[in-house]
Amino acid sequence: MKLFDGGRAPNPRRVRVFLAEKGIEVPLVPVDMGAMGHRQEPVSSRNPLRRLPVLELDDGTIITESVAICRYFEELHPEPQLFGQGALGKAKVEMWQRRMEFNLLSCVAQAFRHIHPAMKEWEIPQVPEWGEANKVKAVEFLSLLDTELANREFAAGEAYSIADITGMIAIDFMKPARIKVPDECANVLRWYSAVSSRPSASA
Amino acid sequence: MKLFDGGRAPNPRRVRVFLAEKGIEVPLVPVDMGAMGHRQEPVSSRNPLRRLPVLELDDGTIITESVAICRYFEELHPEPQLFGQGALGKAKVEMWQRRMEFNLLSCVAQAFRHIHPAMKEWEIPQVPEWGEANKVKAVEFLSLLDTELANREFAAGEAYSIADITGMIAIDFMKPARIKVPDECANVLRWYSAVSSRPSASA
Repeated sequence: MKLFDGGRAPNPRRVRVFLAEKGIEVPLVPVDMGAMGHRQEPVSSRNPLRRLPVLELDDGTIITESVAICRYFEELHPEPQLFGQGALGKAKVEMWQRRMEFNLLSCVAQAFRHIHPAMKEWEIPQVPEWGEANKVKAVEFLSLLDTELANREFAAGEAYSIADITGMIAIDFMKPARIKVPDECANVLRWYSAVSSRPSASA
Repeated sequence: MKLFDGGRAPNPRRVRVFLAEKGIEVPLVPVDMGAMGHRQEPVSSRNPLRRLPVLELDDGTIITESVAICRYFEELHPEPQLFGQGALGKAKVEMWQRRMEFNLLSCVAQAFRHIHPAMKEWEIPQVPEWGEANKVKAVEFLSLLDTELANREFAAGEAYSIADITGMIAIDFMKPARIKVPDECANVLRWYSAVSSRPSASA
């Protein structure tokens, strides 16, 4: 198998961090997203949405969508369980993975894509007012997350999960999107420091 | 357990259709979203994001996010398997559930929330230009989906899955969002007709 990878972009990195936590090595095919490589071959025929990452199995089967690729590896290599354990544990990871994705990562991405000058050819039309609205949404969610993290170590409970990966990558993406974690979000800052000091974070 | 339900809104309906496919009955607590019931008690203390649906277990444990609630029931009642079977089957359902959600349901919802006058108090600020951009995105995805559905019966393969539920509900939501499935998308129309004539569709 091989993984078409997109370097610093958030979604390709989610998969690399996930694989690092599992201790799985997959051959990477680097794609230069800055040169719009994801909109050309060999990506475009494999993913009609022309996005990364893309996993190609040995028989040519294609899996796209970062979380779908992660779930494939979770099924093949269950330990450590990064999608949760048992019905309730799995539901809580799904719930927090989605909260992190829809209320943080997606908002940060919208702010970046609709405001940053470098995104002019990526997001057509850029709607700066929508970008600004998303900065507000992201900071509002951080305040909610801070309250939640007062009572537990990780996003979905006492175990590290894919929800923490999505959250960490969202916070890292806040830098180019020019959004700051408010100083009063001490629990978020504690959690972020813990997850981003794991060896997987550099993947 | 009880399920705080939101009537016609897309996300509460996703869970009701899922439960109907599984043959599971859960006591519903109706919440009037038109009167902003989801932003008040008894919802707001159970879900700080003040959204529906919300599942409350007998011990008071809360699960929010429609797909997380569905996954909880999938674990408890595996048949029929609506999240796919085996590593590859599960990955394909996840991939198509996400494609349906991000590229169709979410776009339709953005178009509705940012353009429809009734949404003025729901989406602040409304950004009509962003709403219009999402109409275009939704129709572009339908064209991609049409090509995919030429070769198989359901979104993720030969078996009905949660990806079909998300897709069907997105298409139903296109009516109030004033987006039309293009006539040339014959495969989408065939698939939509099949999934929306299942008994679960009326849930």
